[in-house]
Amino acid sequence: MIQITLPDGSARTFNKGVTPHEVAVDISEGFARNVISAKFNNTVIETTTPLTNDGSLVLYTWRDDDGKKAFWHSSAHVLAQALEELYPGVKLWVGPAIENGFYYDVDLGEGSISEKDFKQIENKMLEIARGKHDFKMRSVSKADALAMYEGKNEYKVDLIENLEDGTISFCDHSTFTDLCRGGHIPNTGLIKAVKILSVAGAYYKGNENEKQLTRVYGISFPKQKELTEYLHLLEEAKKRDHRKLGKELELFTFSRKVGQGLPLWLPKGAALRERLENFLKAAQKKAGYEMVVTPHIGQKELYVTSGHYAKYGEDSFQPINTPAEGEEFLLKPMNCPHHCEIYNTRPFSYKELPKRYAEFGTVYRYEQSGELHGLTRVRGFTQDDAHIFCTPDQLDREFKEVIDLVLYVFGSLGFENFTAQVSIRDPKTPEKYIGSLENWEKAENAIINAANDKGLNYVVEEGEAAFYGPKLDFMVKDALGRQWQLGTIQVDYNLPERFDLTYKGSDNELHRPVMIHRAPFGSMERFVAILLEHTGGNFPLWLMPEQAIVLSISEKYEKYAEKVLNLLENDEIRALADNRNETVGKKIREAEMQKFPFMIIVGEQEEKDNTITVRAHGGEDLGTISVEAFSEIVKKQVNESLKTFK
Amino acid sequence: MIQITLPDGSARTFNKGVTPHEVAVDISEGFARNVISAKFNNTVIETTTPLTNDGSLVLYTWRDDDGKKAFWHSSAHVLAQALEELYPGVKLWVGPAIENGFYYDVDLGEGSISEKDFKQIENKMLEIARGKHDFKMRSVSKADALAMYEGKNEYKVDLIENLEDGTISFCDHSTFTDLCRGGHIPNTGLIKAVKILSVAGAYYKGNENEKQLTRVYGISFPKQKELTEYLHLLEEAKKRDHRKLGKELELFTFSRKVGQGLPLWLPKGAALRERLENFLKAAQKKAGYEMVVTPHIGQKELYVTSGHYAKYGEDSFQPINTPAEGEEFLLKPMNCPHHCEIYNTRPFSYKELPKRYAEFGTVYRYEQSGELHGLTRVRGFTQDDAHIFCTPDQLDREFKEVIDLVLYVFGSLGFENFTAQVSIRDPKTPEKYIGSLENWEKAENAIINAANDKGLNYVVEEGEAAFYGPKLDFMVKDALGRQWQLGTIQVDYNLPERFDLTYKGSDNELHRPVMIHRAPFGSMERFVAILLEHTGGNFPLWLMPEQAIVLSISEKYEKYAEKVLNLLENDEIRALADNRNETVGKKIREAEMQKFPFMIIVGEQEEKDNTITVRAHGGEDLGTISVEAFSEIVKKQVNESLKTFK
Repeated sequence: MIQITLPDGSARTFNKGVTPHEVAVDISEGFARNVISAKFNNTVIETTTPLTNDGSLVLYTWRDDDGKKAFWHSSAHVLAQALEELYPGVKLWVGPAIENGFYYDVDLGEGSISEKDFKQIENKMLEIARGKHDFKMRSVSKADALAMYEGKNEYKVDLIENLEDGTISFCDHSTFTDLCRGGHIPNTGLIKAVKILSVAGAYYKGNENEKQLTRVYGISFPKQKELTEYLHLLEEAKKRDHRKLGKELELFTFSRKVGQGLPLWLPKGAALRERLENFLKAAQKKAGYEMVVTPHIGQKELYVTSGHYAKYGEDSFQPINTPAEGEEFLLKPMNCPHHCEIYNTRPFSYKELPKRYAEFGTVYRYEQSGELHGLTRVRGFTQDDAHIFCTPDQLDREFKEVIDLVLYVFGSLGFENFTAQVSIRDPKTPEKYIGSLENWEKAENAIINAANDKGLNYVVEEGEAAFYGPKLDFMVKDALGRQWQLGTIQVDYNLPERFDLTYKGSDNELHRPVMIHRAPFGSMERFVAILLEHTGGNFPLWLMPEQAIVLSISEKYEKYAEKVLNLLENDEIRALADNRNETVGKKIREAEMQKFPFMIIVGEQEEKDNTITVRAHGGEDLGTISVEAFSEIVKKQVNESLKTFK
Repeated sequence: MIQITLPDGSARTFNKGVTPHEVAVDISEGFARNVISAKFNNTVIETTTPLTNDGSLVLYTWRDDDGKKAFWHSSAHVLAQALEELYPGVKLWVGPAIENGFYYDVDLGEGSISEKDFKQIENKMLEIARGKHDFKMRSVSKADALAMYEGKNEYKVDLIENLEDGTISFCDHSTFTDLCRGGHIPNTGLIKAVKILSVAGAYYKGNENEKQLTRVYGISFPKQKELTEYLHLLEEAKKRDHRKLGKELELFTFSRKVGQGLPLWLPKGAALRERLENFLKAAQKKAGYEMVVTPHIGQKELYVTSGHYAKYGEDSFQPINTPAEGEEFLLKPMNCPHHCEIYNTRPFSYKELPKRYAEFGTVYRYEQSGELHGLTRVRGFTQDDAHIFCTPDQLDREFKEVIDLVLYVFGSLGFENFTAQVSIRDPKTPEKYIGSLENWEKAENAIINAANDKGLNYVVEEGEAAFYGPKLDFMVKDALGRQWQLGTIQVDYNLPERFDLTYKGSDNELHRPVMIHRAPFGSMERFVAILLEHTGGNFPLWLMPEQAIVLSISEKYEKYAEKVLNLLENDEIRALADNRNETVGKKIREAEMQKFPFMIIVGEQEEKDNTITVRAHGGEDLGTISVEAFSEIVKKQVNESLKTFK
């Protein structure tokens, strides 16, 4: 008999050789039908693998990330079989599950795959799936494994040569066999919907000196409806791609001459960004932050002191030399060393702490050009950075206040769905961390207390803390259900040490302050990108580049349109006028495309009555009203989204 | 007979051999008494030099810069004589007049001069001066000149060896002779007041591999009163040194680790700077500017295109390499190339021009460490930059509007004393300039029209234009009478060409726009430095870091002080409270030192009556009034200094 412990802590006793599937049946027949994957003692296994000793078992369904992983890994096998059948002589290399779906890298010899072939591959995969073939693992000796591929597939031979005899296994289903470590769903029949998404070139071993293989991307689902939903989401995501919207809304651009990954903010984007900065500045002022301004370079020595040079120096932008004096400067990858030097300008007493230095500081970090992506992965970006220097006893209060600020930011920008992660030490390896045990406990407790106090939905991850301190990260879910990491709050015991920061305590002795790094947005670039994808360009009203557009019915009413525009400007409503000689129907269609929250139509009747006819984005008719009444509507909506901080 | 033309265009006839002094007497005896120097046909001569042909003569008094130059040059001779008498064996090198006074570089052998010797040197100089010795020039042959110094003074020998025979002259006065090109006052008796200011080491020929000589700095005046005034001014300038004030007022700092010439703006300085930026932003918004944001680096190619690399590249911060991809980036020395790339984002029609892109853009330019000076000479600074892209026909209006903006800035910041310089082509060398003759004329006329239209006090300098366009520079005089170059407005025909900028004209053809560079402040760093030296830290009220300080008479009134502080904050008055357990007398003295415009004293009576007792910086008593009444006073003063733009 063996004892199997389940994630809820309960334990059940079974005969030796029981399978995860049988354990699931023991829990409930209905549950067992949905179980598609399992982990035993933290190792991925099949649902059919016999368990021969005591241990903890996790059972996964499609709803779990690990369940999806098994589903897509299994689907990659089916894809490989389909390719072998459709492209005789094809040589397989590897085919893993990825975040959304799976791929397989194959050598097609003289052949090739293009979009017109996708349907045929999908059909072949579905045909195989309908066969309800079981996935069956078996161990093989290295010699047998090599014999299987020798002379036929040099890629697999190379893979096997790097494996240890005794650890090699194959997976069979239907007539297909593949070298495989395991982790499959019970049988191919669970795969009900398949989509081949794209093909791309991929160098063997990721090395551009090696042969280029063909990477076939696909995704699969247990229900056709889920595939349909996914494809809709994909379409929606394409429409909301911040690179596309950024261009359409004239927010930002890139220039080949200026350089890749270095955004140029166009007037509308710069104004939007400034509104975001002013919004945070106002809240930060209330929260007792002080703005500072520091240069974008620093001597190499500064980053040697901070430790950043040792960590990033050789892989980043290289030092800037001066012509005669042999100095070396670096583009700053972080603002913290500069803020430490500001703290060091004069001595502080504990009565003066905390000091909270904030800066919209632009930093530069080298990324390979292949890694760059719109505004989410750039080489220069502006952090909404701040560093709080406080006593260990002040951590608790400071953490709570920073969380308040982060929640205020999320609330005013329409991110209602978020979770948090508290990263703490691995208690088993205390030697990996800098700072006293006592201070670490203070800090970890401060974070957890604050998270509880503020009612955050959070998880605690042991061993995820940086060596210099514990942290709290926020993840938001956007309107399409995608996760983004935003705001971070991080305790740091390292830099105060390296920069020899001190304050005079009530005991008249010098002490080390604790430092908190925090950035609610993360970076202006990334945040605007996420906001674009979250809102599809329909920003909260307070943030919109233009809040309204005045559409004159004909050129005759241009003068009245300008008068309305002036009245709106006096009420601090951002608006434009479209007085082109076009039909009002066309003007409305274009204004909808350009995401104007309100369209204000003016013609004969409106001019006569001194009114405006208002239509909201999306089509709602707000009727014919006075400009004053409209201003009230705008003010009310702005106040609803943009809450007051404190 | 010869004809002498005077600066006012009038001509007089004299006998050949007439001296400038005699011409002056012919004009008026009183004037002649003040004439101390002269220029004939643009060459400096003595007032005693006989004129032997027709020509134009300028006569200088102490009030003229050229007059001062002759006065100080002559004083350097007297200093040299004094040093020879006091330090036998001293070897003279050179001793020119400088902006304020003169110096002489001498080799003292084993001897040295320190501050305690200054009085003795001054006395010796005054003793010589009182002898009323005439300065007399005489030509000498190279052989005679060398004979004079050979074996006695290797520095003079070296000077003479580099001169051409026939061009060498000596100047004699009293028992003293010096190698000299001329340009003296009539006699030593005019020198009534002398001050030795300092001594410093100075390398022979400015070369650090040569011997170090002693440089003795002095200044002299025709009246004792003028020396007293000058020394007072010097004292005042020391007190107003922006480096000293910047530290005292906690505005900015420098860090050895961050690097020389790279200012760190402390909270109060950053807030001050932000107020300045917001002030200009608001005016620029009204004037139709749009803000943009661009990175602080650009590919080397960008600056090759703009021509900046050819001009500055090798002497500036060196390129930043990337680790793997072999790209080269430069710290941006100017914002214009980035703004050209923004203009190039999409095509423009003439109807959409002008485009006015503004950015508080931080640029980096290498300066040798010895050249760095506080905030006025730095390696990184933020320009209040903007580039206007317009049609040639729009230049006129744009120039006027930019001048309006500059005058608004000067007016709101207390610079009432300023002049302007219009720099135009040298009409004799049209080949030196880029752009069509027609456009140059348009631009030069636009600038001069605008300057006239706005009633500027300006001079036109031919040949001072850059090769790419004419410009208008503003010079302000500060409270101590010192000149500073501020704001510049510059036309550019070059960059639109190099970046291939175009717009579609009314003729449907593509045309080149004209570009205007302009920066009313120049740079935030330099402007704040000048403002500090101009105001001595007593900024206009709207700009002050703190506008008032609440001083409680004793700790008993701390609560009431905090209440007053809250009321002030509600009225958007920036204030602090000083509730230390100190006498109110001490608190007032310290608040005066720290330049608080208003001191608000609160004690028993004030708390009882709900009033405050207000004292203005400098001591004026504003009586005991309500917080409301005080707010009105502040608002009124702010509105008086900070005018509304348009």
